[in-house]
Amino acid sequence: MTPSAPAKALRIGTGGTSPVTRTLPEEVPVALTYDGSTQAVMMATPSDLEDFATGFSLTEGIVTDPAQIAEMTVEPHDDGIEIRMWLADAQATALTRRRRAMAGPVGCGLCGIDSLAEATRPLPEITARSALTAEQIATATDTLRTRQPLHDETRAVHAAGFLTPQGLMIAREDVGRHNALDKVIGALARTGTDAATGAFVLTSRVSIELVQKSALAGCGMLIAVSAPTARALRTAEDAGITLVALARNGTAEVFTHPDRLTETPHVA
Amino acid sequence: MTPSAPAKALRIGTGGTSPVTRTLPEEVPVALTYDGSTQAVMMATPSDLEDFATGFSLTEGIVTDPAQIAEMTVEPHDDGIEIRMWLADAQATALTRRRRAMAGPVGCGLCGIDSLAEATRPLPEITARSALTAEQIATATDTLRTRQPLHDETRAVHAAGFLTPQGLMIAREDVGRHNALDKVIGALARTGTDAATGAFVLTSRVSIELVQKSALAGCGMLIAVSAPTARALRTAEDAGITLVALARNGTAEVFTHPDRLTETPHVA
Repeated sequence: MTPSAPAKALRIGTGGTSPVTRTLPEEVPVALTYDGSTQAVMMATPSDLEDFATGFSLTEGIVTDPAQIAEMTVEPHDDGIEIRMWLADAQATALTRRRRAMAGPVGCGLCGIDSLAEATRPLPEITARSALTAEQIATATDTLRTRQPLHDETRAVHAAGFLTPQGLMIAREDVGRHNALDKVIGALARTGTDAATGAFVLTSRVSIELVQKSALAGCGMLIAVSAPTARALRTAEDAGITLVALARNGTAEVFTHPDRLTETPHVA
Repeated sequence: MTPSAPAKALRIGTGGTSPVTRTLPEEVPVALTYDGSTQAVMMATPSDLEDFATGFSLTEGIVTDPAQIAEMTVEPHDDGIEIRMWLADAQATALTRRRRAMAGPVGCGLCGIDSLAEATRPLPEITARSALTAEQIATATDTLRTRQPLHDETRAVHAAGFLTPQGLMIAREDVGRHNALDKVIGALARTGTDAATGAFVLTSRVSIELVQKSALAGCGMLIAVSAPTARALRTAEDAGITLVALARNGTAEVFTHPDRLTETPHVA
């Protein structure tokens, strides 16, 4: 399955009516199965699916290390894609015991939650340092913008990236902003890269689930092009994450833990 | 709980460092309970919650008429808000029988789905006509923009509206685009307004779930400021929905069923 498809439309309004052709992003139901049972079905961009499944498994707490996924195959079906995972024995037992009954997708990061208290799950406190300069942070989303080929084609998908003092190491795209971040987290884990060494960069607003995913991945900084919610801000404050938002056109606003910016700037 | 909160930030980048104050949208865990059992917990903007619960109940197929919700109370808790609903007897029995095990929120419209085939649920075909002019359609999102007070404050929330030949009848805001549409659908149902008489207007991109919600509400036209996914387009095509996207600055692109535009224009 390809990540985009052409479409014809009729343009109306000022300037009369005329035919146009657009390239639209595809979205495909992706079933994530573990040991033969479906954990979630999510709409996603059909690219970097191994990264996606690895990141999802980590940020949903199904595994704590990609090595606990003993086997992974991507199986195309008529009506979607199945990512079939087999867990190492000990982890399979843990999954069975998981109290949280996840019967659905977690695009919103809240699936399977059945009480208000569970919606704001306890997070590890991040003490990782980073050495990004104010300039690297303020230009992070512009840097990410140069690595979004599907967005260039469609103007309609999100991206997430991983920025270190050495530059933008990883960029991934998806119709869903949560999926894009899971893809980056999975790509880092699969290459053995410590998320504490850099910052996540996002093309979206920041809701609580993106802060939760960052904390669970051990990343101390989140840089987003748009605004955070008030709850995302409080969650980042509590988790020790530096939340940078409204990062565009060479400026950015630091909402929490600005002390991380006082690190010695990286000299290239 | 208020729908927004002030926050201080440190602006960095071009032009040096300076303190700024922003108003951020709030997001609150909202538990939807039926007959004492939690159906879903979703992050939402704490406004128009009765509309939200009604729309959610309809688009998730829990009820087919708001009268089937015998009682609804909104209960604030320390860690969120509970919308407590009691169903009329017959409906309560139907809910118990529902095959789809919804254990989570449905912000993405897919919660509780446990197979690929279920992700693209069959939809009613919409044959409703409407009499919106090309100009009303092309300026619909500009019209909606004048009715977004929380967005004026925060620049960071979505809105949905209901547009008829007589104008924009309803507008609702939420941090989640699916929630905003559920609020509009609920508001229509609670006032006994037939969704077939107008179009839904959205500030977002169009993914399949928004088309599914429109079809289930019986609305024949969806007008969005940004692009649709390829799957949303195919779903709108099949369901008989006129999908209008990239609607901004006085122009719009009609992707499916343009025949609805050939209706006699409404004369004010």
